[in-house]
Amino acid sequence: MIATNPLSDLLTTLLDRRPFGRKDINGQDIQNACIRLLSERAEISGLQLAASILSQYPMLNDEQLIAFFEFLNNDLDIDATRVAELAVEYKTDPSPETFADLQRACEPARQRLFRRLNEAPGATAVIVRMRRDLLKLLKERPELAKTDHDLKRLLRSWFNRGFLVMQQVNWDSPATILEKIIAYEAVHEIHNWDDLRRRLQPSDRRCFAFFHPSMPTEPLIFVEVALTKEEFDAISETSADTAVFYSISNCQAGLAGVSFGNSLIKQVARDLSRDLPNLKTFVTLSPIPGFNKWLSTEGLKQDDPAKLERLVAKYLLEAKDEFGRPADPVAKFHLGNGAIVHAVHSGADTSERGMKRSSGLMVNYLYDLNRITHNATQFMKTNDIAASSAVKAQARRA
Amino acid sequence: MIATNPLSDLLTTLLDRRPFGRKDINGQDIQNACIRLLSERAEISGLQLAASILSQYPMLNDEQLIAFFEFLNNDLDIDATRVAELAVEYKTDPSPETFADLQRACEPARQRLFRRLNEAPGATAVIVRMRRDLLKLLKERPELAKTDHDLKRLLRSWFNRGFLVMQQVNWDSPATILEKIIAYEAVHEIHNWDDLRRRLQPSDRRCFAFFHPSMPTEPLIFVEVALTKEEFDAISETSADTAVFYSISNCQAGLAGVSFGNSLIKQVARDLSRDLPNLKTFVTLSPIPGFNKWLSTEGLKQDDPAKLERLVAKYLLEAKDEFGRPADPVAKFHLGNGAIVHAVHSGADTSERGMKRSSGLMVNYLYDLNRITHNATQFMKTNDIAASSAVKAQARRA
Amino acid sequence: MIATNPLSDLLTTLLDRRPFGRKDINGQDIQNACIRLLSERAEISGLQLAASILSQYPMLNDEQLIAFFEFLNNDLDIDATRVAELAVEYKTDPSPETFADLQRACEPARQRLFRRLNEAPGATAVIVRMRRDLLKLLKERPELAKTDHDLKRLLRSWFNRGFLVMQQVNWDSPATILEKIIAYEAVHEIHNWDDLRRRLQPSDRRCFAFFHPSMPTEPLIFVEVALTKEEFDAISETSADTAVFYSISNCQAGLAGVSFGNSLIKQVARDLSRDLPNLKTFVTLSPIPGFNKWLSTEGLKQDDPAKLERLVAKYLLEAKDEFGRPADPVAKFHLGNGAIVHAVHSGADTSERGMKRSSGLMVNYLYDLNRITHNATQFMKTNDIAASSAVKAQARRA
Amino acid sequence: MIATNPLSDLLTTLLDRRPFGRKDINGQDIQNACIRLLSERAEISGLQLAASILSQYPMLNDEQLIAFFEFLNNDLDIDATRVAELAVEYKTDPSPETFADLQRACEPARQRLFRRLNEAPGATAVIVRMRRDLLKLLKERPELAKTDHDLKRLLRSWFNRGFLVMQQVNWDSPATILEKIIAYEAVHEIHNWDDLRRRLQPSDRRCFAFFHPSMPTEPLIFVEVALTKEEFDAISETSADTAVFYSISNCQAGLAGVSFGNSLIKQVARDLSRDLPNLKTFVTLSPIPGFNKWLSTEGLKQDDPAKLERLVAKYLLEAKDEFGRPADPVAKFHLGNGAIVHAVHSGADTSERGMKRSSGLMVNYLYDLNRITHNATQFMKTNDIAASSAVKAQARRA
Repeated sequence: MIATNPLSDLLTTLLDRRPFGRKDINGQDIQNACIRLLSERAEISGLQLAASILSQYPMLNDEQLIAFFEFLNNDLDIDATRVAELAVEYKTDPSPETFADLQRACEPARQRLFRRLNEAPGATAVIVRMRRDLLKLLKERPELAKTDHDLKRLLRSWFNRGFLVMQQVNWDSPATILEKIIAYEAVHEIHNWDDLRRRLQPSDRRCFAFFHPSMPTEPLIFVEVALTKEEFDAISETSADTAVFYSISNCQAGLAGVSFGNSLIKQVARDLSRDLPNLKTFVTLSPIPGFNKWLSTEGLKQDDPAKLERLVAKYLLEAKDEFGRPADPVAKFHLGNGAIVHAVHSGADTSERGMKRSSGLMVNYLYDLNRITHNATQFMKTNDIAASSAVKAQARRA
Repeated sequence: MIATNPLSDLLTTLLDRRPFGRKDINGQDIQNACIRLLSERAEISGLQLAASILSQYPMLNDEQLIAFFEFLNNDLDIDATRVAELAVEYKTDPSPETFADLQRACEPARQRLFRRLNEAPGATAVIVRMRRDLLKLLKERPELAKTDHDLKRLLRSWFNRGFLVMQQVNWDSPATILEKIIAYEAVHEIHNWDDLRRRLQPSDRRCFAFFHPSMPTEPLIFVEVALTKEEFDAISETSADTAVFYSISNCQAGLAGVSFGNSLIKQVARDLSRDLPNLKTFVTLSPIPGFNKWLSTEGLKQDDPAKLERLVAKYLLEAKDEFGRPADPVAKFHLGNGAIVHAVHSGADTSERGMKRSSGLMVNYLYDLNRITHNATQFMKTNDIAASSAVKAQARRA
Repeated sequence: MIATNPLSDLLTTLLDRRPFGRKDINGQDIQNACIRLLSERAEISGLQLAASILSQYPMLNDEQLIAFFEFLNNDLDIDATRVAELAVEYKTDPSPETFADLQRACEPARQRLFRRLNEAPGATAVIVRMRRDLLKLLKERPELAKTDHDLKRLLRSWFNRGFLVMQQVNWDSPATILEKIIAYEAVHEIHNWDDLRRRLQPSDRRCFAFFHPSMPTEPLIFVEVALTKEEFDAISETSADTAVFYSISNCQAGLAGVSFGNSLIKQVARDLSRDLPNLKTFVTLSPIPGFNKWLSTEGLKQDDPAKLERLVAKYLLEAKDEFGRPADPVAKFHLGNGAIVHAVHSGADTSERGMKRSSGLMVNYLYDLNRITHNATQFMKTNDIAASSAVKAQARRA
Repeated sequence: MIATNPLSDLLTTLLDRRPFGRKDINGQDIQNACIRLLSERAEISGLQLAASILSQYPMLNDEQLIAFFEFLNNDLDIDATRVAELAVEYKTDPSPETFADLQRACEPARQRLFRRLNEAPGATAVIVRMRRDLLKLLKERPELAKTDHDLKRLLRSWFNRGFLVMQQVNWDSPATILEKIIAYEAVHEIHNWDDLRRRLQPSDRRCFAFFHPSMPTEPLIFVEVALTKEEFDAISETSADTAVFYSISNCQAGLAGVSFGNSLIKQVARDLSRDLPNLKTFVTLSPIPGFNKWLSTEGLKQDDPAKLERLVAKYLLEAKDEFGRPADPVAKFHLGNGAIVHAVHSGADTSERGMKRSSGLMVNYLYDLNRITHNATQFMKTNDIAASSAVKAQARRA
């Protein structure tokens, strides 16, 4: 009987949510809008056009998306003939006017398009998303790398370190940010909100992220830190002497190659050592992704923990890639930052992935704030791998 | 093998959390500290004493808790002989000095104690908790109502409407606040964070809470609002013409009797009508907790929805308590605020509790901002129940 | 010709400001409104009534103001007969009900009035202003001290240390706050905005104030600090070892007797010593207002700086009031806080007022955070004046 | 006697301030540091190098400054031969690799230098200052325009509209910002803090500015608004129907050509019309800088206000530059934004400058939010000057 009442289960309706619609888009429209935006001079209609392009973009289907990027890549490219002419002219007449003409000719129209798009509110996040989508297409369509070159250059300029803001993320942070920490944690999965609380709320845990002012609820990269004593006991934060960086996650696929990790670790180390003067040691607790693969290539299968530790030491200090740089990608990152190989631990990561990649072994890289500049410069020049004497001894005995 | 390594499963350890300790407390100590705090004049040691009392309080066991409140109730009471003497003196000599002496004599030492305690950081929340604990004890120990009288009076002064801050709670709010919304929702349970997001994130939902500056992460009361068209369609917030207050929850048991609900609903209605000028109608969607009980008392069991609606109208308009005021407590609250009975709906709350209390019926109370003062004054004088003509007609035909 | 144009000098008009009107008030209206507010139960009209009373209050003329306070003092007083009866009843029947009745009878209606008034936005500042006005009237009308007793008690409860917020005031603070620092500086006048900048902007200066959340742009009390080396050289803040509190100003005449100075100095000392670990010494640089008067009373006129310093030491350590406490009011304040007399300086304040009060001499009181509790307790018990051995030696040799 | 005391006038010393030192710089050092920064790959030492360059830059003397910009202009220019080669190559092989090589070759090293510099804290403001200094040198050294081209392009990218934040500036704003409003007001001088208060505090005045997140205390441009009735009476803000933009000031000489004025006016108009729905008319009150010059060129000297108004109308509607665009620069700006010439007023600006430039006449340009896009597009295409019928009639009768 109740079912005939149009108000039946009113409350349930109120507490329910509806799905959002998704309308069909004409792929040609967005291209025409881009062309108009490039020719448009009055700012207001430019803003409306930009907003319209940005709102249509996420609704493009796969085929339209490819067409859109091909349009950017080909139709909005430079005129090489004109560049060549102007460059020749500039050789004989290096005047400011010729310089300006040459610079304008060198800049593809798509660069200008991205800048005009960015004037609309919320645009930056959509442009980062464009690059994410483009990167996925590159394998199949390597010619699109021209557009990627432009986007990466633009994003490097916009996401310049000087424009980034480091913020602590904790249990007082907005849920809009916290849900992204859950989503983006790449190293040690956060399963739910209670799990997140365990990472953020205890006084011996810290989490820091970089943000860009135009994307205030989108972390770009974050690092999780545990404050301990002698590296491994969980204790109160004021007596801690060691900060362990146990997880670092890049959040925006569209910012690949626009590197922040280096800056973040160092900034966090500096800030923590100022706030907690007892902190003396800053180490990562890092995976060794290439170890087991190397072991089997070398035919060195092994079960004994102590022997495994020695082999890890050998791997980290001696295995090189074709350019003479460390074979292990994580090692390459931290050594390039000026860290040194500090200590290896068996049985540290007994997760399935940890066992598969490196039989449960992990490694600490040590960031000595007084030495990292020197170390990084040395490493850049010589590719020599700096390590503690203990690790060096282990490597020798492997 | 790995198990023998002291660092084994290092990462797991890092991601795990330790339980917090709880130490035993000597109940006499806290009473002695209170006595010292009352005699103490140097502020600093007072702060330390207060902080120490406040940190011991939550660790008192049941027996110690009763002893503590009896100590407050009896040992820190007024000296009635002195009050009587001074009152007699004041009759013949109404001088400021006698007045001051009399006032001091009338104030129990426990009042002064609460004020001294409150000087320590974070004290207010503990004092609110004290009252919560005390209220639980009152049934068994009615004599403690003296201390409750003092606490309630103090909290009414401290939580004066002029000191409260209304804030919107949304998905950008800190997790520390959001987890309390989950915990405190008293009307329609929020099961988890996804459920909460459904209440807060959609553009046609709102949540507002009162906060006190000394308890910035503790909502005191909050109301959830759905913006709809003609009361019941979920739509975009800008075209909405109706705001439905579908849930209102008091959060602090220790603030019982320190009423804010009235102020909150009116403040929210005013703020919403300013921000969304299309909003014309402000109604609650309220339970009718006493209906089924009344039905069975009156011997009027009924299944037909239309007949039930008429009976609800009759119940709300005619059932009175011993003082001639509405029998239904929710009706009494909203009518006292100046709202009127607006419309009744069968099949609106088909939850177990909704069926049990009122066979799924709910009622809208209408807050007409131009009429509430007049209505409230009338209701206070005459106990007449204001209602829409539709509901009046239903009641007549019941 | 231009003058006939109604738009002439349009721009000047835009850049000019008009005076605000001031309308006449009927003094009886505000009293009637108070009586209605006390009887009113519906909150909304209560808010309107309260707002109306608060907006009328500042427009009362002198005569109306006196009539208003006499109304509060006499018409809204307690019923002493009833208090006496209830107190007698409570002696034989100490029940919660009698207790509650007695408490209600002891509370003058004006107390309830102030609380109802405070529910309106911005009320707290007006109530503080009421007390300021009342204090001015007390000399002529000492009987109004009853109302003052109530107001002071209420304000002490509302301005409880636990509700105050300490904030640094610097050159980034809002102009609304800064203009009040200029206005309220009581010790060393700030002549203009450039003068203020010199106090706030240099890195070796600090200013801290207490605020109440309901009066966010009104400092209650503030202290100015200079960071120095060995007390007297202006240097960079990180190498400073000494913080000199050279000026402390109460801002709200209406909060006289609701003391914060003690808390502020200690809180600032604690916060500074945490942020700048090199700071070891916290001293005031204080005037000696009673010195020259004492000198002439004792017939000890003197010009030699060294001899004057010894006489100041003698004055501070030996001159007592009728209760055996220090004769000098500033000394009484700091010794009561747990500070000690640290050093005296001739030629320190060569301003006209400084020369007149104490021939240019000033004194440092030392706040040793580890000793202040002990010192304050001792002083309270014995009235013994703690001092450095240097000052004691000077006093002996005077 | 007192003068021999090393502590004499201690207080005066405390209240005094010391001048800051300025050390000599070796001009070659900063160039060497730039070259190292460009070759440097380790980020940390890069940051130190960048910080060192930025702190040395403001100390360069005039000669060193010229040398520094010549170094940027010549030593860090592109290699045109390589650009030409790569452009020719790209014509036959438009591959991503060749594209990337060509783009790298087209970018002068100084561009990369500016980006590296910007990674240091506070760098953006110094780079803006570099451009300010460079612009001053351009007249004497026009060849430096190449470096200016790069800087302007970079700053346009960094100060993209999407990265700017509009904020209201009022009497609650920080003094650090307010003192800059005083300093930067270019149209109607603000003489002191009281003068500023008169512009900001009244409820019928508004001030809005654009900020960049990396320069949070530096307004980029601000506009002052008066809310009036029928354009000219100063009244309460809620009944106002007209917003008069009476002053707009660019703050950063180093951002010349990075235009924001257009965006700011439109954004303010939109925000105000949303917050104050009674506002119907948005007009500027603008100077007519070229009028008197034009009058004398045309030999039309005149004293009668009514005739002058007609001549102003004629001037604004008919006087054109060599490209057929309005001769008056202010007219050109507002017409390009989509505004129309609305009304002319004699006797509106009787200041010395106002009399000299335009005999006291001013003009309103009207921003009709529904028409500005259409107007701006039309103006861009046809250079036709839109005006009210009243102004058109005046022009005809001139």
